[in-house]
Amino acid sequence: MRFEIKDRDGLARIGVLETRHGKVETPALLPVINPNKVSIEPKEMKKLFKIDILITNSYIIYKNKRLKEFALSKGVHKLLDFDGSIMTDSGTFQSYVYGDIDVDPIEIVEFQRDIGSDIGTILDLFTNPEESYDETKRKINETVRRARISSKVKGEMLLACPVQGGTYEDLRAACAKKMSEIECDVHPIGGVVPLMENQRYDDLAKVIISSKRYLPLSRVVHLFGAGHPLVFPLAVILGVDLVDSASYAKYARDDRLIFPWGTEKLEDLEEIPCNCPVCTSTDIKELKEMDKVEREKKIALHNLYICFSEMKRIKVAIKEGSLWELVEEKSSLNPMMFDALRVLEREDVKEWLEKFESISKKSALFYVNPHTLHRPIIYRYQKRLFSVYRPREKEVVLKEEVEKPYSKYYREEWGKSKIDIIEKTPFGPVPLPLDEMYPIAQSVFPKNIDEESKI
Amino acid sequence: MRFEIKDRDGLARIGVLETRHGKVETPALLPVINPNKVSIEPKEMKKLFKIDILITNSYIIYKNKRLKEFALSKGVHKLLDFDGSIMTDSGTFQSYVYGDIDVDPIEIVEFQRDIGSDIGTILDLFTNPEESYDETKRKINETVRRARISSKVKGEMLLACPVQGGTYEDLRAACAKKMSEIECDVHPIGGVVPLMENQRYDDLAKVIISSKRYLPLSRVVHLFGAGHPLVFPLAVILGVDLVDSASYAKYARDDRLIFPWGTEKLEDLEEIPCNCPVCTSTDIKELKEMDKVEREKKIALHNLYICFSEMKRIKVAIKEGSLWELVEEKSSLNPMMFDALRVLEREDVKEWLEKFESISKKSALFYVNPHTLHRPIIYRYQKRLFSVYRPREKEVVLKEEVEKPYSKYYREEWGKSKIDIIEKTPFGPVPLPLDEMYPIAQSVFPKNIDEESKI
Repeated sequence: MRFEIKDRDGLARIGVLETRHGKVETPALLPVINPNKVSIEPKEMKKLFKIDILITNSYIIYKNKRLKEFALSKGVHKLLDFDGSIMTDSGTFQSYVYGDIDVDPIEIVEFQRDIGSDIGTILDLFTNPEESYDETKRKINETVRRARISSKVKGEMLLACPVQGGTYEDLRAACAKKMSEIECDVHPIGGVVPLMENQRYDDLAKVIISSKRYLPLSRVVHLFGAGHPLVFPLAVILGVDLVDSASYAKYARDDRLIFPWGTEKLEDLEEIPCNCPVCTSTDIKELKEMDKVEREKKIALHNLYICFSEMKRIKVAIKEGSLWELVEEKSSLNPMMFDALRVLEREDVKEWLEKFESISKKSALFYVNPHTLHRPIIYRYQKRLFSVYRPREKEVVLKEEVEKPYSKYYREEWGKSKIDIIEKTPFGPVPLPLDEMYPIAQSVFPKNIDEESKI
Repeated sequence: MRFEIKDRDGLARIGVLETRHGKVETPALLPVINPNKVSIEPKEMKKLFKIDILITNSYIIYKNKRLKEFALSKGVHKLLDFDGSIMTDSGTFQSYVYGDIDVDPIEIVEFQRDIGSDIGTILDLFTNPEESYDETKRKINETVRRARISSKVKGEMLLACPVQGGTYEDLRAACAKKMSEIECDVHPIGGVVPLMENQRYDDLAKVIISSKRYLPLSRVVHLFGAGHPLVFPLAVILGVDLVDSASYAKYARDDRLIFPWGTEKLEDLEEIPCNCPVCTSTDIKELKEMDKVEREKKIALHNLYICFSEMKRIKVAIKEGSLWELVEEKSSLNPMMFDALRVLEREDVKEWLEKFESISKKSALFYVNPHTLHRPIIYRYQKRLFSVYRPREKEVVLKEEVEKPYSKYYREEWGKSKIDIIEKTPFGPVPLPLDEMYPIAQSVFPKNIDEESKI
């Protein structure tokens, strides 16, 4: 597999993944196509959203005689009439929803290979967060065993081996470590839909962190079923490269519109605060009164417009080095997302994230909310302060914050005396020798930040 | 003047203002049309954005012989080829930018009346925030004097009498009180562009509050030069009904694109995270390379799409009672906007805002950031707690928060004993008799809120 990193902001990265059907720019959103019920044709999606990858379900194709025969003889690309990259899932999610499924775990991998899937997925065992530690452990062992065998039959197909483990961080870590040793390409993080459905974003963060942390950086990481764009920035800043979404269609079925700030029911709206081609060309009354099938398609298209533009915004943020601002901004939209940020404030997590921060960024650091001072770049400064700085004399002078950079302002005073000057700043004490370190001088704070944010 | 309130969320309101050229739904964004240099025709704006009102400058028309003669003989509506409502400004802003202007203050009001303006503005004196108290006082006295005379010559035209006063809260209040006694219809809040340009949003909040507070609720309030949509929610929650914006065109001239979260330079972008008809139909490379005039128009259109959809979002929020969430959300986009919220936390401001809160809202209260617990509805709860509640016995029992409403959970225990049960909640202590008061039971908080947010 060729996977090239073009740009980074911490663990978040813009990359190019090559499959037999072309290049895929990451982070990418893979729309889920149900081969039984295509509401928006992949071809149309390619035209409207320039998608270069999608995901479909090989188990559904396998179980349907007509689809199966077509796919085996002409390939999955012809079946979906799409010439970009196609990733296939294996039926694991169906086993979670409907109970046991009727397919051999190796046969379904071979089937994906034979229908020409670009990225096939092993039949992993879905670890429900409600399950016991022992049951979860048994499931990851079996999943790893299947991954080993699947790896040998994958042929030219790229192989996705999910990390499972429920919400047990040590089991996620153990599973990730074992998967790292297997020859494969993509690591979906699985078993998270129940967390997403219940907005347990703190557990979701723990699961992503304990999986990603033990996976090689050269592998592509996929979050299975990320759904709502609210979740995308958090996932990407924790190193996720691919997300898929069936929500655009599921929400549309219930007349629910996705927005960058959440979801609204069509019936509750009198006008649609959206500029997408669907919303600017369709009157809301017209939309409410039109035929259900037609409306469902229109809302699904609207939902896709929002999901894809949110992904574009994430890429812009990675390029300008402002993804943390975006993640914190999104936390203000959902209190449970705020709980997720609390997980990122854990000492061990900051320690890990800090390693991937670059020395400087294109844009200044902007204060967003109390999480801001827990960003890894600030954690780095604090570590540096205690490990590197030794005052020249026993006494130091503490000064109120003035204009930045402080050293420029105090240069004269500093030159005259041997006593160190230390600035009082939102980052904590800043001795003059450290004050041109990013982001001390390149930061924008409110005049009065809340008490807890002060270090 | 007919101005009917249709819906409210605190001081924010959805209203319908009637002029001789039809109905205007508020809060409304009035695009500024420069009669000398029309880049997007008002007719086109009406078609694309369904605008029912715009603002243009009568002084520019007055100073240009050709425009003046045309407007006097055929009217300003024919001049701009627009049959909706037209508000006119008077040259005050030009006097701020270019120094003294050459027009009689009463003549310019008569001129606006004679060209058929729907809402004309007196020639007020621009109070620059840098000016002294005495100079500012002199200016408001002269402005009030002019308003009195102008009121007598306005004829059928609705009259706008700005509130001036720099950043002196008592002068703003004094000016507002005097203006309230004059027969007129709209009160622009003037002299705020320098605050906006320097992102002094805390001073802006003070200025809006000290003006609005002393104006009759029946009058329409306009914020002159609000510009960027980031400012709209703050303005509207403080009772502003109209905002105007020339920024869409000014930013376009510098190749700057407005987004709901801020502004981006075209050259810094590799893709545009936007779904508007301009951005979905124009490739970014194409946009960067096209002729300057054509590009400027395209960016101006994009900017208008964003500004108008942000205004729609505000209306949706007013209708569902979630405007505070939106205001706080926007504060996370700009640290200076956070400073503005600090002004809204002042005891006297909360006391004032609380009066306009309804007893209950359609939607639950969502925690957004440390400002949340300073919302006026929560201030009301706290006042109620201290004024209404008396424990039945000297002792009370303090309980950890459980599921909501607490009274339902503890009903049995409560019935058995005479000792009051008091819940520990993010709102502070909640005695059982008060716990079904909005928003105690209808609220969504993170598991752990930051320390300062706790009361």
